[in-house]
Amino acid sequence: MIVRVLGSAAGGGFPQLNCACAMCRLARSGAPGVVPRTQTSLAVSADGVRWAILNASPDLRQQVTQTPALHPVPSASVRNSPIGAVVLTNGDVDAIAGLLSLREGFVFDLYAAEPVLEALAENSIFKVLNPDVVTRRALVPGRPIRVLDDLIIEAFVVPGKTALYKETSAPDFGTRPGDTIGLEITQPTKGRRVFFIPSCARVDDALRTRLEGADVLLFDGTLYRDDEMIAQGLSQKTGARMGHIAMSGESGAIAALASTRVARRVFIHINNSNPVLDPASPERRAVEAAGWAIATDGMELRL
Amino acid sequence: MIVRVLGSAAGGGFPQLNCACAMCRLARSGAPGVVPRTQTSLAVSADGVRWAILNASPDLRQQVTQTPALHPVPSASVRNSPIGAVVLTNGDVDAIAGLLSLREGFVFDLYAAEPVLEALAENSIFKVLNPDVVTRRALVPGRPIRVLDDLIIEAFVVPGKTALYKETSAPDFGTRPGDTIGLEITQPTKGRRVFFIPSCARVDDALRTRLEGADVLLFDGTLYRDDEMIAQGLSQKTGARMGHIAMSGESGAIAALASTRVARRVFIHINNSNPVLDPASPERRAVEAAGWAIATDGMELRL
Repeated sequence: MIVRVLGSAAGGGFPQLNCACAMCRLARSGAPGVVPRTQTSLAVSADGVRWAILNASPDLRQQVTQTPALHPVPSASVRNSPIGAVVLTNGDVDAIAGLLSLREGFVFDLYAAEPVLEALAENSIFKVLNPDVVTRRALVPGRPIRVLDDLIIEAFVVPGKTALYKETSAPDFGTRPGDTIGLEITQPTKGRRVFFIPSCARVDDALRTRLEGADVLLFDGTLYRDDEMIAQGLSQKTGARMGHIAMSGESGAIAALASTRVARRVFIHINNSNPVLDPASPERRAVEAAGWAIATDGMELRL
Repeated sequence: MIVRVLGSAAGGGFPQLNCACAMCRLARSGAPGVVPRTQTSLAVSADGVRWAILNASPDLRQQVTQTPALHPVPSASVRNSPIGAVVLTNGDVDAIAGLLSLREGFVFDLYAAEPVLEALAENSIFKVLNPDVVTRRALVPGRPIRVLDDLIIEAFVVPGKTALYKETSAPDFGTRPGDTIGLEITQPTKGRRVFFIPSCARVDDALRTRLEGADVLLFDGTLYRDDEMIAQGLSQKTGARMGHIAMSGESGAIAALASTRVARRVFIHINNSNPVLDPASPERRAVEAAGWAIATDGMELRL
């Protein structure tokens, strides 16, 4: 299995187009190791020929352009794509807007949990995905699907919240089960298990149990501290309010997963406010000392 | 006035992510002069400090990243943007999807004609543009607006069709006046007139009269021949069906505007099927011999 990180930043990307925070300024100045990142999306393949896209980031066209393995094959029909499936973990703009860059009439299956399919159906702009070629399929948590013949993907509900544009005035913002899911990707005959969980509000026992023994975990690394966006004057929202667990702290991801056996743990969906984006920061050193890597665009994992 | 071409390709960009046509293959192979192009968007400014974006292409984040004049100012508040206005000419994905990349909470005015404002209102995903900071304003054809204090923009209806995702089974696909507009951009105290018309189904007398004496015309250059997408096996649609006049032919843009006095005429919104993308093509030579230039990303016009 090949897992390629097409994008590794949280919503807005890095640097973010209206942000002059410390990290965004470092990125624009070309500081060593502070590399720009597009918004989070993965490409996964069993054979290196046909690919599934996990989350369609707004930067998808740019990401595909930069990834020769995802280009059309010159010898096939004049319009073709190695992309045969797209799987969504939530309905936020940074996970679905890239669908609008897949409107060019090639055949693929689109998988999402019921609340996300509903959001797509409610927004007529997604009708540019011609139903004659793009088949929308319900991704039911706990019911694995076979994608492109040789990948098995199982969705599971994780703590989270509904998409920003679907929020209601209810205390939980109208969140429903399936608004945020994680994905477990395996191959039929191999034992390797990869997890992609770009949004997760907290780590509970169910999640720890599920992750036990995983080969690769790509996990929500939006913020280092729960209140960092407030502290930096970027927003009035905590990570908890946005549905994202912090890396650090007593109930942060590093602590919560410290005793869970995972061979390779990688933070992805990194927000531009997160100091780990600077390799020279103490926060980056702390994260790496705890056994975590920070995803970069173009990172490739082979299992 | 500064007019900067952020993107110059039609919907899908160049190369298009699922296209292996002759031009897309040339672009991927790095053929001399066959330069990649992102989807059509302009940035316009009277002072080089505050900018209006004309059409928000799906590639807007990438386009802003590549344009230092559009970056936030380090000395101002931590989140800021020189982008103060966005003006839309139609509701197609390639003209509006970039709005989703402007969801980060900075203040700007969003101008569009009534049918496009309706399309935005019908799609809840655009609620990520917080109404406390993004003010939606009706652009009424024939009623000039003052944008960023020192730009005057007047919309006028041009022949066209409704957005793909709004098409009905009616013979005109449910098209209404205002579905496709052109923009005339001037400055209060100067006499220079710039036109941006990225979609136009045909040139009529009203349009010719309006364009007479223009300094710059950026005009719909989607196709060279009306049937070129069919001929290349890319689509079953003519230019006419898509709401785009061809460059060539008796009723094409070159012939239709030949006797209209325009100082500088530039084709923009170039589809990946269009042979003018290759500077070595006879079609490119014919277009240039007729006095037209082909827009490229990053092209800057100063008036």
